[in-house]
Amino acid sequence: MSPRLKMGVIGTGRIGNLHTGNLVRRISSADVIALSDPDRAALEQTASRFEIAQYVADHTELLANDEIEAVAICSASPTHPQIIKDAAAAGKHIFCEKPIGFELAEIDEALAAVDEAGVKFQVGFNRRFDVNFRRARDRVAAGDVGTPHILRITSRDPEAPPPDYLAGWGGVFKETTIHDFDMARFILESEVIKIYVAGDVLAYPEFAESNDLDTVVITLHFANGAIGIIDNGFQAVYGYDQRLEVYGSKGMVRVENERQDMHEYASAKMVSRAKAPYFFLDRYSDSYQAEMQAFVDCVLNDEPSPVTGLDGRAPIVLAIAAQRSYEDERPVEISAIE
Amino acid sequence: MSPRLKMGVIGTGRIGNLHTGNLVRRISSADVIALSDPDRAALEQTASRFEIAQYVADHTELLANDEIEAVAICSASPTHPQIIKDAAAAGKHIFCEKPIGFELAEIDEALAAVDEAGVKFQVGFNRRFDVNFRRARDRVAAGDVGTPHILRITSRDPEAPPPDYLAGWGGVFKETTIHDFDMARFILESEVIKIYVAGDVLAYPEFAESNDLDTVVITLHFANGAIGIIDNGFQAVYGYDQRLEVYGSKGMVRVENERQDMHEYASAKMVSRAKAPYFFLDRYSDSYQAEMQAFVDCVLNDEPSPVTGLDGRAPIVLAIAAQRSYEDERPVEISAIE
Amino acid sequence: MSPRLKMGVIGTGRIGNLHTGNLVRRISSADVIALSDPDRAALEQTASRFEIAQYVADHTELLANDEIEAVAICSASPTHPQIIKDAAAAGKHIFCEKPIGFELAEIDEALAAVDEAGVKFQVGFNRRFDVNFRRARDRVAAGDVGTPHILRITSRDPEAPPPDYLAGWGGVFKETTIHDFDMARFILESEVIKIYVAGDVLAYPEFAESNDLDTVVITLHFANGAIGIIDNGFQAVYGYDQRLEVYGSKGMVRVENERQDMHEYASAKMVSRAKAPYFFLDRYSDSYQAEMQAFVDCVLNDEPSPVTGLDGRAPIVLAIAAQRSYEDERPVEISAIE
Amino acid sequence: MSPRLKMGVIGTGRIGNLHTGNLVRRISSADVIALSDPDRAALEQTASRFEIAQYVADHTELLANDEIEAVAICSASPTHPQIIKDAAAAGKHIFCEKPIGFELAEIDEALAAVDEAGVKFQVGFNRRFDVNFRRARDRVAAGDVGTPHILRITSRDPEAPPPDYLAGWGGVFKETTIHDFDMARFILESEVIKIYVAGDVLAYPEFAESNDLDTVVITLHFANGAIGIIDNGFQAVYGYDQRLEVYGSKGMVRVENERQDMHEYASAKMVSRAKAPYFFLDRYSDSYQAEMQAFVDCVLNDEPSPVTGLDGRAPIVLAIAAQRSYEDERPVEISAIE
Repeated sequence: MSPRLKMGVIGTGRIGNLHTGNLVRRISSADVIALSDPDRAALEQTASRFEIAQYVADHTELLANDEIEAVAICSASPTHPQIIKDAAAAGKHIFCEKPIGFELAEIDEALAAVDEAGVKFQVGFNRRFDVNFRRARDRVAAGDVGTPHILRITSRDPEAPPPDYLAGWGGVFKETTIHDFDMARFILESEVIKIYVAGDVLAYPEFAESNDLDTVVITLHFANGAIGIIDNGFQAVYGYDQRLEVYGSKGMVRVENERQDMHEYASAKMVSRAKAPYFFLDRYSDSYQAEMQAFVDCVLNDEPSPVTGLDGRAPIVLAIAAQRSYEDERPVEISAIE
Repeated sequence: MSPRLKMGVIGTGRIGNLHTGNLVRRISSADVIALSDPDRAALEQTASRFEIAQYVADHTELLANDEIEAVAICSASPTHPQIIKDAAAAGKHIFCEKPIGFELAEIDEALAAVDEAGVKFQVGFNRRFDVNFRRARDRVAAGDVGTPHILRITSRDPEAPPPDYLAGWGGVFKETTIHDFDMARFILESEVIKIYVAGDVLAYPEFAESNDLDTVVITLHFANGAIGIIDNGFQAVYGYDQRLEVYGSKGMVRVENERQDMHEYASAKMVSRAKAPYFFLDRYSDSYQAEMQAFVDCVLNDEPSPVTGLDGRAPIVLAIAAQRSYEDERPVEISAIE
Repeated sequence: MSPRLKMGVIGTGRIGNLHTGNLVRRISSADVIALSDPDRAALEQTASRFEIAQYVADHTELLANDEIEAVAICSASPTHPQIIKDAAAAGKHIFCEKPIGFELAEIDEALAAVDEAGVKFQVGFNRRFDVNFRRARDRVAAGDVGTPHILRITSRDPEAPPPDYLAGWGGVFKETTIHDFDMARFILESEVIKIYVAGDVLAYPEFAESNDLDTVVITLHFANGAIGIIDNGFQAVYGYDQRLEVYGSKGMVRVENERQDMHEYASAKMVSRAKAPYFFLDRYSDSYQAEMQAFVDCVLNDEPSPVTGLDGRAPIVLAIAAQRSYEDERPVEISAIE
Repeated sequence: MSPRLKMGVIGTGRIGNLHTGNLVRRISSADVIALSDPDRAALEQTASRFEIAQYVADHTELLANDEIEAVAICSASPTHPQIIKDAAAAGKHIFCEKPIGFELAEIDEALAAVDEAGVKFQVGFNRRFDVNFRRARDRVAAGDVGTPHILRITSRDPEAPPPDYLAGWGGVFKETTIHDFDMARFILESEVIKIYVAGDVLAYPEFAESNDLDTVVITLHFANGAIGIIDNGFQAVYGYDQRLEVYGSKGMVRVENERQDMHEYASAKMVSRAKAPYFFLDRYSDSYQAEMQAFVDCVLNDEPSPVTGLDGRAPIVLAIAAQRSYEDERPVEISAIE
């Protein structure tokens, strides 16, 4: 029988609970032996729910536990860079929720610490592990669509993030589009060289107050000549809208939304079927498990990380360029960022 | 330029108008030069609509026109056998709407007259010319489904025939299921050897008065071992339901309903799309044109009829067996009919 | 925190492992504290996999454990009646995999024992807990399809059961169609009064040796007037085919197959999408969890069983009638069985 | 009986034949009494095919026929402005294929002539009459999607225009995207105020020689705040790709591609269905008939034109802005054009 990876989970909010649950119940080659979170109530609830004996407020205390071989960083986004550095210094392998950080300087510091420590590092771009998108990527990689000409990604949330979540929110590009920037690079295996953004506040006036956008359409110029379009919104009342399409010289592959169920009702008026899953916890449940299994496997088998530090950095560069494009009302060369 | 077939149309009701319109407007290799119908008003309306100079009450007068090379028999079903004999005696090639007749004896007499006259004869099983079902048959014929195990045909009307139509109505099996019996033989290219019927009056109590059924489920045992299921109803409020499926050792082919349009609307409740076409004039419009083109081609090129007299007779045998199965509440061997 | 039900699992084959896994990992209100199976290797493997301390060869030994409040009977079908009686005598609540038994006499004895003991009893018709079929049933129950006229159930396995499984196999009607008989009753909430079977051996000649059928089409006459059709096969190479449809006076509801993923590929030839899940462990994974959760809830909350002993008995009556219909080549009244 | 509009058709190429056929065979309230085309062979072939007695080389000769009440201008695009002026001067009502012209000055001259003559004028934006897009527009107009946020139009040809057609070709924006610019205005009922183009030559190197593009992605900023995306390509080997989507505050409506037929084949590998129609003559057949019927109706009933001169001019303005955006690599304000 294979050895079991001993892990600590840092941050016991929504996503921390999700990862802890997967590690405890669905991934047989790992154990969670400690949790940390400054929010005492959340921490105790998670510890109790998953019967985890060690739980501490401070992540440095968790990192001091020599038994722990790897950590999952699930804390608030702004804390990521420091915790990465601390974990690397403690010699722990690191799974880090996206984003690595909001600023390039702190990201680069964190990644340098990881390099120096020589620990494994995987960023939480779970959608790469979604079976649907993976099949699309396989099609592209296998040449089934020929030379890619146009990539389209639609990613619309059913509602805006809750007010408390918006408090530490890094803006639409770094928080939401970041997943789509990553998906674009993942699907086409080519880098973005120029970006243009059209954006507005159409759904939630409060977004304007924080100088944020709730509706964006982004044009991507890729190094390989392909052109990409990402569109985001936060008012997809018809369900979490997660689609993708690649058109090329030999065909087209696309991923349609999943459905809550497969029933169909034909009345005298219309034929109706079930909506898409409501939000990401439903839609991406399996991909969260798969990414964590991949992390555990990569550590146990000493294999390369499937989502590297550079994969985590690149979308932040694109997010910065996107913001600049929006503000300057013009296309922005990616090479101009840094 | 190819010669144009000179045709007469006998019967100017709904289906007579349909065929006349196709011959006049959509089939460039034929001309309609005469019409007949005892209903003076209908006759004149059709003649005027399609600008046809000769129109007479009596079909024998039409048949006496030596210019006419072929006729389309679109009169009331009970008149078919006699008109077939008259047309054959006049040496006209014959396209005859289904059914050839309601009784085997009269069908056999009519077909004997056709044989004797040596004229072309095609029965109006238009669904054989529907592009959807034809693709399914091609799949089966090409071996894509392997050895056929189960055939399913669903054929449900959106409403019962109008009262005046029911007056000369031959019952569900000879009027409605007849199309499905033909489709079953067409798709599997095998004969039915035994039949079992479950039927009831569930939608229209008036069907019971005429000893008819408005809901039937028919099991077919085929000579090649396959098992078939036909179901019919007259209350498909969601649109004309015309589906088919063949399951076999190598796969499954099915034909789904067409849609009135391809729009799709996703609301906070459901995802909706358009209904199926409402009824046969919409759904089978193209197949009516294609079958008539095939008839014209078969006469002009002296080719075998694509839907023979025996193809017209076989479904009536099955309809008789179906009626007997329902009345006796038992499966009936087809060989016992005749 | 709610109390946790202490359970024993009897039988550690494929389905026993499935239920144990759900109880251990996915149902937080139950614990598995003991296992039994005469097959030592299977028993130890399951005990080790789920870290269960008590595991014994003989189910009576397991039943003697006073801590155990309820059992899941997952042993070979022929052993069910005796184990039910033993468990009832020991005062354990019982979840029993289908079928309760193969013969009415032994079923009735077992159910009498359950009644006498006053324990909860739930039969493992997991498909009732499938979200798709449940939505269809909800539609029917809510009157969305109006008066049901025709019910169609297609249930085709991708392959025949393995040889060792066929050893204790009760025949297609009691082993496979039993699920569809139950679904028919569940969806329409009406009893079958007459049955007609067309069946053959078309895929696996070895079925003929054991006097079994690999292709069946079954007509059901319901007490409420509706007519049903079930078709089964064991060579759906295109994936586990699990569909259902109810047509009625106000509309139609149907359940289409799930898909392995939602990608779609359009080439110069066709548009392709993913197949259905390969088999029942994938397709019905969630429903197995849901049925067990329902059992645990019904015991903990002292609620009525959602799938009663009579629900388990009725499909066996239909299976007996189906076999008789096939052998006698005629429809069989259900009232004639018993 | 209603009066029949006497029409002349100017230009007997592919689209001229199409309109003539519709007027002769499918529109009962119009007659084609004359044709003109400088290409003698094409002219005679069309005249013979549709049995039209008068056919002349020069359109001015056709316009001199006092019997003619209206004309359909189907000649080469560069000739449109002059022929419009000639037809207006002759007092004929005008149906004009898109584009009205390639330059704003000549368009404005032509439209001024139409205004002065007081004749009806309809531009051939047939897609407005497509039942699918019309249903989408109806949904938007009825408020079913709420406030529109994002509009997406995908319009990809299966192949590049033939070399001889490319000879008089006005470039991708004025020839191809023009339909999508019109559709965008039609669906949202709002004007575009800014445009950004990403484009490249990815499929046909010969496009580069004529300084044209074969792959474009266009961002549209609308006056009502909505953001639009149009993408075009000329290598959709999987069939003519004509889709559209509007996402708004209350839902989403989209139009999916039609299919060549409704059969579906499930093999051991995939589930396959038929491709989209190959090209526009198949896909838009009904809409060409509908737009011409609308023109005939508008003249006969003296109603406003459903697609005005301004509707024909606006997309040319957008095309000019698009070209400028591509060349300058920046977004362009529409108000800067003129």
